[in-house]
Amino acid sequence: MSRAQQMLETHPRALSLEASVLAACIDECFVCAQTCTACADADLGEPDVETLLRCITLCLNCSDICLSTGGVLSRQTEFVPDQARIVLEACIDACRRSAEECDHHAQHHEHCRICAEECRRCEEACAVALLALPT
Amino acid sequence: MSRAQQMLETHPRALSLEASVLAACIDECFVCAQTCTACADADLGEPDVETLLRCITLCLNCSDICLSTGGVLSRQTEFVPDQARIVLEACIDACRRSAEECDHHAQHHEHCRICAEECRRCEEACAVALLALPT
Amino acid sequence: MSRAQQMLETHPRALSLEASVLAACIDECFVCAQTCTACADADLGEPDVETLLRCITLCLNCSDICLSTGGVLSRQTEFVPDQARIVLEACIDACRRSAEECDHHAQHHEHCRICAEECRRCEEACAVALLALPT
Amino acid sequence: MSRAQQMLETHPRALSLEASVLAACIDECFVCAQTCTACADADLGEPDVETLLRCITLCLNCSDICLSTGGVLSRQTEFVPDQARIVLEACIDACRRSAEECDHHAQHHEHCRICAEECRRCEEACAVALLALPT
Repeated sequence: MSRAQQMLETHPRALSLEASVLAACIDECFVCAQTCTACADADLGEPDVETLLRCITLCLNCSDICLSTGGVLSRQTEFVPDQARIVLEACIDACRRSAEECDHHAQHHEHCRICAEECRRCEEACAVALLALPT
Repeated sequence: MSRAQQMLETHPRALSLEASVLAACIDECFVCAQTCTACADADLGEPDVETLLRCITLCLNCSDICLSTGGVLSRQTEFVPDQARIVLEACIDACRRSAEECDHHAQHHEHCRICAEECRRCEEACAVALLALPT
Repeated sequence: MSRAQQMLETHPRALSLEASVLAACIDECFVCAQTCTACADADLGEPDVETLLRCITLCLNCSDICLSTGGVLSRQTEFVPDQARIVLEACIDACRRSAEECDHHAQHHEHCRICAEECRRCEEACAVALLALPT
Repeated sequence: MSRAQQMLETHPRALSLEASVLAACIDECFVCAQTCTACADADLGEPDVETLLRCITLCLNCSDICLSTGGVLSRQTEFVPDQARIVLEACIDACRRSAEECDHHAQHHEHCRICAEECRRCEEACAVALLALPT
């Protein structure tokens, strides 16, 4: 069980959605934030850095958005499902764009292949959490 | 002229929208992020902290979302207007919620009055930038 | 193997220290950032929130510092060991303070017990990375 | 008077140092974080991006460290001067490194000249705050 799930299981308030679904999404947001930071940095070290400018930008954006999404979802004491919804939608959009761009470079750069994979996992975990939000 | 505008005026690429509009939005995002962090902290120091839990949560969320929005807008080399749009909408939503909650406490807590004012300014700057985005 | 380690193993440049040591530290920084955000939020939901103000503050500080440390360590293309050193020292300090404060509440709040444990793990991973930095 | 100072002047607790000194430091941390994010992005758009990799990395690091420093200093309810001290030292170090690197490119890139200037301002504001901390 991840730290995020352990923390949710011991939260003093009733959760707005299932702990395992919420934890999976929070975990992916933080892992994806790190992976995207690392991919932007690895791109900088490649000989063809000029072809990776869009990848760097979308990864930096995705990292920022994943962190703010992970933060909002981690706050369950006064959780506002409608706020989580719009934030998750922004995160799904950012992960999809980052994954699509990384895919273009996956054959030449293994870090882009791994990053695309992680962005897709995060996108899916966010989509599952979005569906599980109370209406 | 703010630092953000100075940086935009010297950017090597053509900007996707007017520098003054973009800079005003970026400036408010970073100021609002700080103000919301400070308001959440000031709430903690109040004797009636138990009545301010929602204010603290919405301010922490707003701070996170403003920072990621300010980051995305600051990246103009490979700017994606459709990504900026969804991020700005999330930021407008967060600022509005934070302003409304702070308003409830503005009579008793001057820091909530100032924070509500700043959140409204940021909401407006984001709305102006949103309208100025290329379609 | 964690995503962070996968990314380090595929980095185009030679790493400044062993990938497994660096990855373990980066992983703990991001997990600890999330755990501290969650602990500060869980504290807000407790009936004795007024006794947890220091815990909330130190956890929010630790979360911020862990994220910036995880970011700095993730950037290996132009890594500066002397910068990493001072950042790791700030992170070790923040984790220790947060762990000590959470310990005071661990008997009453299970989330504080878990958070203290995570802060100690992160402190240790940072200390190991600090020793492994090239001089 | 900046928002940060307005918020400090209305804080419910006694401040650990003079509001104007603290506010000046917090303001520069947030402005410098934005400026460094913008400089890293502008570097990406330059034809000689391969010569700017170190500048990009140090600016991204400086941005992260400025944000965590600005956050720690903004939290005054349970302020720990010894924690602020170590965080300010890391920020001073990051600003100095970023300023020095930007200086190398200031003749060719106006955004680097402006960023170096902002990093120096932030470094100075942090140094003044460091001296003003209670012992």
